[in-house]
Amino acid sequence: MLQNYIKSTNINPHVSVDCVIFGFDFTGLKVLLIERKRENQKINIQKNMLLPGDLIRDDEDLDTAAQRVLRELTGLKNIYLTQFHSFGDPNRVSSKSDAEWLISVREQPTARVITVAYYALVKLHDYKPAASSFAKKTEWCDISAIPELAFDHNLIFTKALEHLQRTLREHPIGFELLPKKFTLSQLQKLYEAILQIPLDKRNFLRKILKTNILIPLKEKQQGVSHKRAQLYGFDKKNLSKVKHFGI
Amino acid sequence: MLQNYIKSTNINPHVSVDCVIFGFDFTGLKVLLIERKRENQKINIQKNMLLPGDLIRDDEDLDTAAQRVLRELTGLKNIYLTQFHSFGDPNRVSSKSDAEWLISVREQPTARVITVAYYALVKLHDYKPAASSFAKKTEWCDISAIPELAFDHNLIFTKALEHLQRTLREHPIGFELLPKKFTLSQLQKLYEAILQIPLDKRNFLRKILKTNILIPLKEKQQGVSHKRAQLYGFDKKNLSKVKHFGI
Repeated sequence: MLQNYIKSTNINPHVSVDCVIFGFDFTGLKVLLIERKRENQKINIQKNMLLPGDLIRDDEDLDTAAQRVLRELTGLKNIYLTQFHSFGDPNRVSSKSDAEWLISVREQPTARVITVAYYALVKLHDYKPAASSFAKKTEWCDISAIPELAFDHNLIFTKALEHLQRTLREHPIGFELLPKKFTLSQLQKLYEAILQIPLDKRNFLRKILKTNILIPLKEKQQGVSHKRAQLYGFDKKNLSKVKHFGI
Repeated sequence: MLQNYIKSTNINPHVSVDCVIFGFDFTGLKVLLIERKRENQKINIQKNMLLPGDLIRDDEDLDTAAQRVLRELTGLKNIYLTQFHSFGDPNRVSSKSDAEWLISVREQPTARVITVAYYALVKLHDYKPAASSFAKKTEWCDISAIPELAFDHNLIFTKALEHLQRTLREHPIGFELLPKKFTLSQLQKLYEAILQIPLDKRNFLRKILKTNILIPLKEKQQGVSHKRAQLYGFDKKNLSKVKHFGI
């Protein structure tokens, strides 16, 4: 389309954004990966999965570019999204297949690109992501089974997880990944999935209940075969008051 | 010089690094500002102070570029230096004097520049910074008296201070700003200067002593008119074990 063509001439060849999109499905922490489109079928298919990202446009700031990537991929707006690190190793494009793929999709395929990385937290139960214009397919991958990714995207993922772990210890951001109603056991599983360590149930409950961010609801879990557990919601008034609570 | 000329052709016109260099002189937290050189004396002298920074070179990664800026300005290596945020507002260069200055010093003065920002912690007592090749003079400015800076450098400074405050609450990084021997009162002043709040002396001492990161030395303060206070050092073995200690 002409509109797309005009836009593509206003792209900054040296700066991109990449997004590590985290979701939680009650079993584990997932990351959204995309399989890149290959115009040329002869390109080596190794390391064909990567994090969603794009070069920035001249009229948008970094946050806007990251929001655009997220919106194009998931259709969702107003998602928790935070910039955490920029990556600028001159050898970010070190493999032959990465270089060949860039030749097939970029106007200046050899330009050195510095990428500003964001991570997003989405409620997996709210939507199914659609494959976007720049992806062949999308896939939620458990963080314990991330394959070898293109470019330096494994490093970007690792840094994002470390940042998320630090932030979760400081602020109760877990509610961004949970549905409105959840059990204490689901909440503990979320913390364990992010921190990658088992937590003592009694200690965890004592500490999290002391923060006053949970509201017991007058409802119990539905559709389970075992004993139905009490449901809780987050008290948004108190969320901002909680700092570190020693988890 | 020919060497400089060759290097200048390998500069990335779209990506820079900027450094917020913090120091502590026992009275307050300071930031190193530079006064920019103006080849053309007719340029408006408003907002002539700024943070040190430079465009990156094609062969260096972001950390290396920040280390280079710091080394050129202070002569010091191995300083605590951390990347904290990237800034890419398309209108970062909004004033006439900023645009005019860029015309006088850059090969592509209208290129949009995204800057990757770092902050550094230096021991003020160890050295005196020398004006570097790109600065007319340097000045340690108390953080309560930062003037209006060029570009978006006031925003970069504010974000750096917020990041430093969060980090200090998580990790005992204060030792990067203090000499090897210090009094408890000096340590409290450092925390107050960074956090910008008065701290209750008894509470502060109780919490910081509980962390086991301080070693009482067999020495007292020298050259003071008041009662000579006990000197302390940091116990580097225990520093990495301390997480949040509720200051």
